[in-house]
Amino acid sequence: MNKEIKENVEQQHPLIHCITNYVTVNDVANMILAIDGSPIMADEIKEVTEITSITNALVINIGTLNQTKVESMIAAGKKANELHHPVILDPVGAGASTYRNEVTERLLKEIQFTVIKGNISEIKCIAQKTNTTAGVDANDADLVNEANIDEVLAFAKKLSQQTGAVIAITGPIDVVCDTEHSYLIKNGHPIMSRITGTGCMLAGVIAVYVAANPKQRLEATAYAVTMMGVAGESAYDKMCQQKVGTSSYRTYLIDAMSMMSHETLNGGMKVEIQ
Amino acid sequence: MNKEIKENVEQQHPLIHCITNYVTVNDVANMILAIDGSPIMADEIKEVTEITSITNALVINIGTLNQTKVESMIAAGKKANELHHPVILDPVGAGASTYRNEVTERLLKEIQFTVIKGNISEIKCIAQKTNTTAGVDANDADLVNEANIDEVLAFAKKLSQQTGAVIAITGPIDVVCDTEHSYLIKNGHPIMSRITGTGCMLAGVIAVYVAANPKQRLEATAYAVTMMGVAGESAYDKMCQQKVGTSSYRTYLIDAMSMMSHETLNGGMKVEIQ
Amino acid sequence: MNKEIKENVEQQHPLIHCITNYVTVNDVANMILAIDGSPIMADEIKEVTEITSITNALVINIGTLNQTKVESMIAAGKKANELHHPVILDPVGAGASTYRNEVTERLLKEIQFTVIKGNISEIKCIAQKTNTTAGVDANDADLVNEANIDEVLAFAKKLSQQTGAVIAITGPIDVVCDTEHSYLIKNGHPIMSRITGTGCMLAGVIAVYVAANPKQRLEATAYAVTMMGVAGESAYDKMCQQKVGTSSYRTYLIDAMSMMSHETLNGGMKVEIQ
Repeated sequence: MNKEIKENVEQQHPLIHCITNYVTVNDVANMILAIDGSPIMADEIKEVTEITSITNALVINIGTLNQTKVESMIAAGKKANELHHPVILDPVGAGASTYRNEVTERLLKEIQFTVIKGNISEIKCIAQKTNTTAGVDANDADLVNEANIDEVLAFAKKLSQQTGAVIAITGPIDVVCDTEHSYLIKNGHPIMSRITGTGCMLAGVIAVYVAANPKQRLEATAYAVTMMGVAGESAYDKMCQQKVGTSSYRTYLIDAMSMMSHETLNGGMKVEIQ
Repeated sequence: MNKEIKENVEQQHPLIHCITNYVTVNDVANMILAIDGSPIMADEIKEVTEITSITNALVINIGTLNQTKVESMIAAGKKANELHHPVILDPVGAGASTYRNEVTERLLKEIQFTVIKGNISEIKCIAQKTNTTAGVDANDADLVNEANIDEVLAFAKKLSQQTGAVIAITGPIDVVCDTEHSYLIKNGHPIMSRITGTGCMLAGVIAVYVAANPKQRLEATAYAVTMMGVAGESAYDKMCQQKVGTSSYRTYLIDAMSMMSHETLNGGMKVEIQ
Repeated sequence: MNKEIKENVEQQHPLIHCITNYVTVNDVANMILAIDGSPIMADEIKEVTEITSITNALVINIGTLNQTKVESMIAAGKKANELHHPVILDPVGAGASTYRNEVTERLLKEIQFTVIKGNISEIKCIAQKTNTTAGVDANDADLVNEANIDEVLAFAKKLSQQTGAVIAITGPIDVVCDTEHSYLIKNGHPIMSRITGTGCMLAGVIAVYVAANPKQRLEATAYAVTMMGVAGESAYDKMCQQKVGTSSYRTYLIDAMSMMSHETLNGGMKVEIQ
């Protein structure tokens, strides 16, 4: 990975407007702060376009949707597009209800996203209109592995072409791609799904990295995803060593992100670029 | 306690739909994940019945009520009843306002609950229409102890008869009963009330355990309550040993729940079955 | 500082009604509990005046505003004024949008506040109608330091005169003043802005301290601000010593507040009274 990607974040401290769910919002804010960004959460229609205007990127996370918030997402997204700010979509639980699918479809129609990040079930739901989501987690049958990686890459690239966005699919192997290039990232640990919010936090991290590196959105997204994976592994090591449980793991994960140097990232990453 | 109760959870990973407050929602999600369940939070009327349909149990927690959310609670509760899914009521702060009392009454009228869990003031409010709640905490004068245990048991059993639900009353002595049998659980520690959300988290744990053990709803509820009490004690021991404060205690509590074996539970439990 | 201030809190366990944002609400609740208060969060218009009536103080935090919540803030604030309960204003992100400014102006017009607490950009926005806020953080150019302290004090005292409230401005030097007296508090650490919610938590702490010391609202506010600064320093020391990151820092901060004795406060404080 290119060290400049991280240095740009550290120099610019991007300000991120998040319209997100109320379950993991605190983790998202703390994660953004941990990696040298600055978060502002605002979803009232009367202020969202102004808030978007003073920030450097927008995250739209559909984790706990409601009708009022959807209008704010649309308004903020359009404003961000107008200002050429990066917009990240995190389609949490897409596939879990007709309403989430309809909202996701509307968001994709009315807003140009810079990055779309989800687990495989969520991304499949967007790309293939399948509903295989198990609540907000990926369906086990869908998980990206060595056997289905080519198939997944093909549809991710196609989705990138259709949407114009970088596609990031999280799982045992994380896939980050645009229409031409792809990163296969084998970092991370299954325990990351034993705490809430790792996906939501990652969307915030991607927003920070892409905001500071607007011309390298693919590499910036891959950098963010890899960082999260490497942090997920070192947090797991610490959890085992300290003989503690999943709540400590959450703390260690954010800690690891707040302390990670470019050198640690490069030393720990297991990334294949195609 | 019966080991099978926990094994059923570990094998089934129940998916729990929570319509809950925004104060402790993150703790509830993390606690459900910590004990091998999977949470999904959704309260938009347009999706709640569908979300309830794809999950294994529903938690209704009235901690931060609003008029929109109440309609979602009713809709989800009715759907859960239709599908014979367990429904857990956590009447947080019942007695603190006329509105909470009216909503609680309406919920009890329109939804058949499987378990009703609250502190003694909340349960008394439901059972006897008394308003002795001190905010969201139990009134000290109400606390269950050796002196008033018979009286409490009598009204808990009566409430179980009236509602058809298992009744769980938390306090220095936790009471879990149906119309016939009762568990008196003397685990736990007063410090559990020095962090927010122990009650809300417990409702999530009960939902997971009852979802995986639908035919043993009384024992499953007692198992969940006992687990929380034993974890509360071991987290307190660790807090003292490490010379730390209440925020570490919260971490240790969820950690302890995520690591608890059936053997640890059985070794630490102080339970009297009547 | 006067030991009685803290003893009054420990004896009275004030109950605090918070109408606050959904980002840091869990931290606020845990912080209030950590320092021997008791929180209740409620923002539904149908219950806010009743909730205010049974509590000892009200916190109004505009972090994630919406139109419905604003009406609840006004109703609760008026009821608190009627009952002579302390009311704390935390104008999070004032200056970040026209809407936040309008709401802040309306709140100040319709409610008599006991304490107004913010970073320098937020307070300047209120006092001078300037919009220099960088999202929810203070603009670096505004930070209170030795060079501009006299200027800041002058306008803080003027704002106190205009509003009748104690003014608390947080930053490298914290300023707490009324029209006559002022405390300059040089405790704290810059890392406090690397986690979300330190400001929101402080508003909760002030509410607890002022509720228990209604006749010494200036000293109680200064006590609360100093406590937070001293805790911020000891948490930083522990973070460095343990070689951990920002999420552990959050835990250590609340831990330190939950364990702080009057003697520790007095030993660590760097306070100048003018």
